[in-house]
Amino acid sequence: MSRLLIANAQVLQVSPTGSNVTILEEQDVLVNGQRIEAVHPTAAVDPSHFDTVIDAHGMLVAPGLINCHAHVPMVLWRGLAEDASIDRWFNDLMWPLENNLQPEDVYWGMLLGLIEQIESGVTSVADHYFHMAHAARAVEQIGARALLGYAMFGSQGLNMIEETASFAQDFQGAAHGRIRTIMAPHAPYTCNDDFLRATAQIAQKLGVGIHIHVSETPQQTIASYRKRGITPLQVLQQTGVLDVPTILAHVCGATPADIRLLEQYDTGIAHAAKTYLKLGETTAPVIEFRAAGIPVGLASDGVVSNSTLNLWETLRLMALTQKARTGMGETLPIAETLAIATHGSAKVYGQPNELGAVTPGYLADLVLIDLSGTHHQPLYNVGASLVYNLQSTDVRTVIIDGQVVMRDRQLLTINKAEVIAQVRSRMDRLSYLDPAKRIQTYDN
Amino acid sequence: MSRLLIANAQVLQVSPTGSNVTILEEQDVLVNGQRIEAVHPTAAVDPSHFDTVIDAHGMLVAPGLINCHAHVPMVLWRGLAEDASIDRWFNDLMWPLENNLQPEDVYWGMLLGLIEQIESGVTSVADHYFHMAHAARAVEQIGARALLGYAMFGSQGLNMIEETASFAQDFQGAAHGRIRTIMAPHAPYTCNDDFLRATAQIAQKLGVGIHIHVSETPQQTIASYRKRGITPLQVLQQTGVLDVPTILAHVCGATPADIRLLEQYDTGIAHAAKTYLKLGETTAPVIEFRAAGIPVGLASDGVVSNSTLNLWETLRLMALTQKARTGMGETLPIAETLAIATHGSAKVYGQPNELGAVTPGYLADLVLIDLSGTHHQPLYNVGASLVYNLQSTDVRTVIIDGQVVMRDRQLLTINKAEVIAQVRSRMDRLSYLDPAKRIQTYDN
Repeated sequence: MSRLLIANAQVLQVSPTGSNVTILEEQDVLVNGQRIEAVHPTAAVDPSHFDTVIDAHGMLVAPGLINCHAHVPMVLWRGLAEDASIDRWFNDLMWPLENNLQPEDVYWGMLLGLIEQIESGVTSVADHYFHMAHAARAVEQIGARALLGYAMFGSQGLNMIEETASFAQDFQGAAHGRIRTIMAPHAPYTCNDDFLRATAQIAQKLGVGIHIHVSETPQQTIASYRKRGITPLQVLQQTGVLDVPTILAHVCGATPADIRLLEQYDTGIAHAAKTYLKLGETTAPVIEFRAAGIPVGLASDGVVSNSTLNLWETLRLMALTQKARTGMGETLPIAETLAIATHGSAKVYGQPNELGAVTPGYLADLVLIDLSGTHHQPLYNVGASLVYNLQSTDVRTVIIDGQVVMRDRQLLTINKAEVIAQVRSRMDRLSYLDPAKRIQTYDN
Repeated sequence: MSRLLIANAQVLQVSPTGSNVTILEEQDVLVNGQRIEAVHPTAAVDPSHFDTVIDAHGMLVAPGLINCHAHVPMVLWRGLAEDASIDRWFNDLMWPLENNLQPEDVYWGMLLGLIEQIESGVTSVADHYFHMAHAARAVEQIGARALLGYAMFGSQGLNMIEETASFAQDFQGAAHGRIRTIMAPHAPYTCNDDFLRATAQIAQKLGVGIHIHVSETPQQTIASYRKRGITPLQVLQQTGVLDVPTILAHVCGATPADIRLLEQYDTGIAHAAKTYLKLGETTAPVIEFRAAGIPVGLASDGVVSNSTLNLWETLRLMALTQKARTGMGETLPIAETLAIATHGSAKVYGQPNELGAVTPGYLADLVLIDLSGTHHQPLYNVGASLVYNLQSTDVRTVIIDGQVVMRDRQLLTINKAEVIAQVRSRMDRLSYLDPAKRIQTYDN
């Protein structure tokens, strides 16, 4: 197995409860194969015992960020659905644009988005999209970690559940275990109860979870309640979706009763603060979820709503918007914000005891951050700088599953110029807009 | 006079009303001395006619950003007042910390903050702080543009008005015109009516404006109304402050009647969206100000509340928070957001016909932006990328008053390592915290 030494680093330690942040000084981080073997004060070591030695003097080693809900290949349409509320965003822009999607586009879009993620220190992604065998090929090639769900709408019929279940079965544990799979029905408003029930049953059978959009807005909650007397989360409960581990995207329209309901299940919330602001939506009750013990993790959603896949921005906006909605600067303090970004996201992603911390035995998904930039000076408060000051270019080196995939901002596993050229060659075809040809209709 | 050619660039053009954004392709920008001489399609020119030639192929030339309200030297305490609401922020943290300030600290803090500004493409700043002759020295040395106001509290007595007026008189037009001055009483809640009235009279006499904090929160508006039956903006009206050109910082607590009042005066609003979020405050009614024809410009405030001086983040958060507060993704569209960042800020800053546009005759305060990064790809929409995707490191080259102050991210007018070392050497003394020794008390 390959051995890596990160020498003479600072190491970020965040308590799982979010009560404190500690910076360990002058540490060596030893990586053996996929996992962290040891973290200890810098000692004289024989470099010949290691395949790779990174001198991390002046760098902070932190866990790679985990993106708990994305549609990475949507980078293909970056900037094409601006200044729109959710109805127009879906019906006039995104769903017509997605009518242009071809399977091979997913491969190149996934690669471009994974490059953007790696360049900003995001090492894992729970991706929810179409033609996912092509996404898996990109994940394997670039060396990323991913939890892949093949998205489906109820209108595609029950056969689609079989097809996406085959994907989930075939790719479980692929890429030497870096790929896990999950079932991915779109939302209660695009999948009827029979469809959700059948999905839950097959997820049970395969031993996988479910990743779904739910209660994206209070309006959706109200619409569901008016139509059928129950909230979208109650729909998930009644159809058995909550009986498997779930990733619930957004949940901005959760009622207090919904939160009590969720307390009883193995579920986590994926939170995409920038997207909510950009669409003019109400943000989610993050502090209420936390108070109820429901895990919260960071999410980028797709870049057509979020503009980028930079999770540091999500992290920052989550803290800022929770302060604003409560009217208190004390809300979501730095340590708790970082706990959500690390332990919380690892829990939502489904690998709480092996991701999200620089700890022996954990998977070696690590980023080296340079805090010497002017925007961090003078550096009294490392935690504050990570939450409120960091620019993604401060992330210099990224390690996933023990492999260095970016070193001093040079990508080592992919030809970026080729990926960008491939995506650019698709721009004309992909940006053709015919609102009559949308893949679904949004009417919530 | 020195002649500069920026060759083969894209050029950003924003309509003053915010109705559209245009990107001119393959342009040459000719600078003669302090000013832009011409902008025209790239033509064969003889480089020997220019002192400096910058090949800007693949770069976007945009106006430098204008920071309409800051306390730049507060970088000295970056990260020392986190997770606090406004009362605690002032009384337990910032005002005790400022008790440690010595005049020479202002010089080094100003330099550090100006470096951060230049590195993120901010070329002008309306700064409101203490010991401003030291700030002016830093501005002159680094080659920045600034509108300097020597901050004062009513508790310092009427003599302080004379002292700060002397500063305003002595430094008006300094640094070859890059420095302008303004009177800077702190706020209606820290300056009584006599003090404000005397300040307004001296500003009239000197022919300068007034830069003041006002209605920072709705609570301040309510407190003023309860105490004396008028709002803080009515106080400014009654004391004559609004009879000179004013920069009003924040104004988050403006009532509809206040907005109608402001319509009648030569005033502008400095907007610091990130600070409001971070302190858990209500943001300002930016779209209502715009609808009433009141100019709005971007502001960083001090980094002890805002964490950084990166105005691209303010610009982004202004658009996002206005969308959120109106519940509409259509609010503050990209072109209008960029108009606020350029023409709007130039108007608030008091140089509307010579800053904020890449136009012949305007002062040559320009930034070259590289949009080739992954986070902009594929680049369908330059305006969207500027507002929602840009990282400050995308700003590669900065020109102020015709002088190149940063080229391909190398600072040309200052020794950054020395500045950082000087600031670091002051950290222990400046961070000493004794809440009993605050410079003022906040009780609004």
